[in-house]
Amino acid sequence: MAKNIRVLVWNENIHERENPVVREIYPNGIHGCIAEALRIDNQLQIRTATLEEPEHGLADETLDETDVLIWWGHAAHSRVEDVIVDHVLKRIWQGMGFIALHSSHYSKVFKRLMGTSCSLAWREAGEKERVWVCNPAHPIAHGINRCFEIANTEMYGEPFAIPTPDEIVFISWFEGGEVFRSGCTWKRGNGKIFYFSPGHEMYPIYFNPSVQLVLRNAVRWAAPDAERWIDSCPQISISEAREPLEQKGPRMHEEGEEGLR
Amino acid sequence: MAKNIRVLVWNENIHERENPVVREIYPNGIHGCIAEALRIDNQLQIRTATLEEPEHGLADETLDETDVLIWWGHAAHSRVEDVIVDHVLKRIWQGMGFIALHSSHYSKVFKRLMGTSCSLAWREAGEKERVWVCNPAHPIAHGINRCFEIANTEMYGEPFAIPTPDEIVFISWFEGGEVFRSGCTWKRGNGKIFYFSPGHEMYPIYFNPSVQLVLRNAVRWAAPDAERWIDSCPQISISEAREPLEQKGPRMHEEGEEGLR
Amino acid sequence: MAKNIRVLVWNENIHERENPVVREIYPNGIHGCIAEALRIDNQLQIRTATLEEPEHGLADETLDETDVLIWWGHAAHSRVEDVIVDHVLKRIWQGMGFIALHSSHYSKVFKRLMGTSCSLAWREAGEKERVWVCNPAHPIAHGINRCFEIANTEMYGEPFAIPTPDEIVFISWFEGGEVFRSGCTWKRGNGKIFYFSPGHEMYPIYFNPSVQLVLRNAVRWAAPDAERWIDSCPQISISEAREPLEQKGPRMHEEGEEGLR
Amino acid sequence: MAKNIRVLVWNENIHERENPVVREIYPNGIHGCIAEALRIDNQLQIRTATLEEPEHGLADETLDETDVLIWWGHAAHSRVEDVIVDHVLKRIWQGMGFIALHSSHYSKVFKRLMGTSCSLAWREAGEKERVWVCNPAHPIAHGINRCFEIANTEMYGEPFAIPTPDEIVFISWFEGGEVFRSGCTWKRGNGKIFYFSPGHEMYPIYFNPSVQLVLRNAVRWAAPDAERWIDSCPQISISEAREPLEQKGPRMHEEGEEGLR
Repeated sequence: MAKNIRVLVWNENIHERENPVVREIYPNGIHGCIAEALRIDNQLQIRTATLEEPEHGLADETLDETDVLIWWGHAAHSRVEDVIVDHVLKRIWQGMGFIALHSSHYSKVFKRLMGTSCSLAWREAGEKERVWVCNPAHPIAHGINRCFEIANTEMYGEPFAIPTPDEIVFISWFEGGEVFRSGCTWKRGNGKIFYFSPGHEMYPIYFNPSVQLVLRNAVRWAAPDAERWIDSCPQISISEAREPLEQKGPRMHEEGEEGLR
Repeated sequence: MAKNIRVLVWNENIHERENPVVREIYPNGIHGCIAEALRIDNQLQIRTATLEEPEHGLADETLDETDVLIWWGHAAHSRVEDVIVDHVLKRIWQGMGFIALHSSHYSKVFKRLMGTSCSLAWREAGEKERVWVCNPAHPIAHGINRCFEIANTEMYGEPFAIPTPDEIVFISWFEGGEVFRSGCTWKRGNGKIFYFSPGHEMYPIYFNPSVQLVLRNAVRWAAPDAERWIDSCPQISISEAREPLEQKGPRMHEEGEEGLR
Repeated sequence: MAKNIRVLVWNENIHERENPVVREIYPNGIHGCIAEALRIDNQLQIRTATLEEPEHGLADETLDETDVLIWWGHAAHSRVEDVIVDHVLKRIWQGMGFIALHSSHYSKVFKRLMGTSCSLAWREAGEKERVWVCNPAHPIAHGINRCFEIANTEMYGEPFAIPTPDEIVFISWFEGGEVFRSGCTWKRGNGKIFYFSPGHEMYPIYFNPSVQLVLRNAVRWAAPDAERWIDSCPQISISEAREPLEQKGPRMHEEGEEGLR
Repeated sequence: MAKNIRVLVWNENIHERENPVVREIYPNGIHGCIAEALRIDNQLQIRTATLEEPEHGLADETLDETDVLIWWGHAAHSRVEDVIVDHVLKRIWQGMGFIALHSSHYSKVFKRLMGTSCSLAWREAGEKERVWVCNPAHPIAHGINRCFEIANTEMYGEPFAIPTPDEIVFISWFEGGEVFRSGCTWKRGNGKIFYFSPGHEMYPIYFNPSVQLVLRNAVRWAAPDAERWIDSCPQISISEAREPLEQKGPRMHEEGEEGLR
């Protein structure tokens, strides 16, 4: 893959500003930490955006230049404007990858993609988590040998109210006795979606080398592998149907898109 | 199954009032025609509701007594209030069956369940449609022998922008040369969902005996087969985790629900 | 559901005869213990069969009268005749339910249904297992409140080499630190399939009331809900294609089959 | 993707030798025609193999150097040795792509991967087929604008007895009135699988430029995107479970495998 993958790391950036414990862990914000972790892969081109920017940093010109969007939100899901949510959804359907992290299971975008409540059980007790690979064959698990550990984490537990995932990459084991489908994939329209649960703001989880590896893998996996799908609801006339097929109908793809990978 | 299945047939009921052609075909409304078709099965208890009623006829007390909701909309999707959409979604997640008909692919409820654009190609030319059974084993296809025909129909064609269905029950063939996944199932939370494309208002499609049979089958298939799932996002304390499991945690199900089937 | 569900509990019945520890736990065989647990539901009609019987107790006349087949095997997978495996597969495709227990992940029938290697990680250390409900809405989890415990069990761990299940009903947590997709469903042809991992022969797991409840639920879930699908590869002539559709083509279903549920 | 994708085109090569009509269409065999079509993509490295070669041309050394295996069979499915089928399955589970063409729906390998009967309806009448794109976003449909036509084809019709595909890329429309899921994907273990129905030996279908484009796209899609998954059923001791996780357990991947893409 010659061209870079353009990644936008979005963070609501509230706990880091309001909670000194979180600020100490993430002085550059969770988005800053993730961005740095991704820059290790020199095929990735990284930018960040936060809630407080105009249009939450998700203006059309920005999304035009985004192949994969990473999302971290928790305290301010309701402050994300519906019109921005609609724009992001449209981009995902066209092919932009979307990676939802941790408490973003309750973000507007993720809930709209799933069509379910996305609820889960939880406990904040700093316990140990083991993240197991269910599918060693999956590109997102590349380089992880069977499992990795997070020393202190918030527990997220089943039942997780999601539609059946296309593939389950990771399932987590918790010291306190629970389990959770912690790495799941879906496709909506042309967009690949990955949910990854580790990442509570009170622990330095995005500094964990295995978590960072998973994020780099996930970005490459979620990058578009096809033309953009410009969605429409075309009316096809009978005369069009009878025309030679080569000239028929509205094109579904944009002109000038470059080829497959 | 001893107890009745309580069905609510919802219709926006606009074309029937505004267009004399449609009114002549459906003097009692599309909902009236479907209701009559369902009453042939004496295990089904049928009511109807329309857009113009208070709360669109979908008040909480009504949904409390609904096992399966059938939906027909076209001209007034945007007039369905978001708060009602949220109520309907919640009921589906708890276990209420949902059957979306024809142009309801663009209804707010269906789009929210799918998480995609739900677009399709279309042509109104009164052409012939053959509805093929892809899965003779499926309860919704019960009694249909390989395929059935609709003499005059609106063409709905691929690409249909939906997530991969759990099962495809029907695929349609059109005289003009197109195909369409015309009968598809999904599950969201505890709710079973069926989309069935035949049903353009300008043709008497809901009088077709095979279409009526499919609707009766679909209602039985979509009826809840489990307890209601009262969704929450429970916080589990460590002490709860250490309690004997029999007493542990918030219950996920309602008390007093009757058993399986 | 007025008519009984006819269940056949199949067991290779080797450990019980050769190992005194197992014989003491299961004096009537694992199949005897499971049969007794199922008889609590008086809508179920229960028979048993074992490897050593002629045709392994799976003659055509027996399968004719079987709605759901439960399978336990471990030491003698290779001794199950291929011709019997083919007969069982054919019945499943027609609609017979199939429940594979514990080490039957490596049975010929289950591997043929999955199309994968069905390997897993394992450890025999008598450790504790917690079986979590992932999908409280699923009929197989009916009556289980969030999770149940098995005091001593063999660990089965990820990665479990199966195709993505249609639904994951249970995921297990193990004291030693592993996780496992312990209750999964698929459909092949008209047959519903459930794999359930608890059941090592060295512990009295099939006496556990929650395990027994799951088995009763699973039998009801796996029972056929449609006509038998008599599979064929029909050649359709053009003249048949032009006949009125009502008389067209070979029927896919058997005559005289009773209706849906 | 710097390195070449190594493709093996396998053909039973019987009709071409025994039937003068077929020989005239495919003087170099169906495999020869497909090989030539693939060589247009200079990232692909193409070899062919046929039934009559020792080990059917599928010896271990050959499979060692195969990333994607294309399969065409019809008259001699039963002559493919079971031991070779087992070797091919193992390679697919490890990550080799597998593309089954036309009548290979009844090949031993495909049936073993699906776990169903794989039956379908059919008619040989030289009628017209329109292959519709269901999923314009899919890499296999890259460059196809809504649909393409095959002037003369054998009809393959529903019901097609397969498990629900992961994605349906194409659905075909036939002049005689049938429909068929003509392009479907699945994953088994680490292997990507694509079934594509066009290709009856009595018509020059593999010379059709759109069919050739689909085959080139499918090869790129099916190429492994991860390490090989060396399947096993590892026993994990308690002491291993307690070791630091970095050193723990048998590795699932081969040493020295190069990285992702």
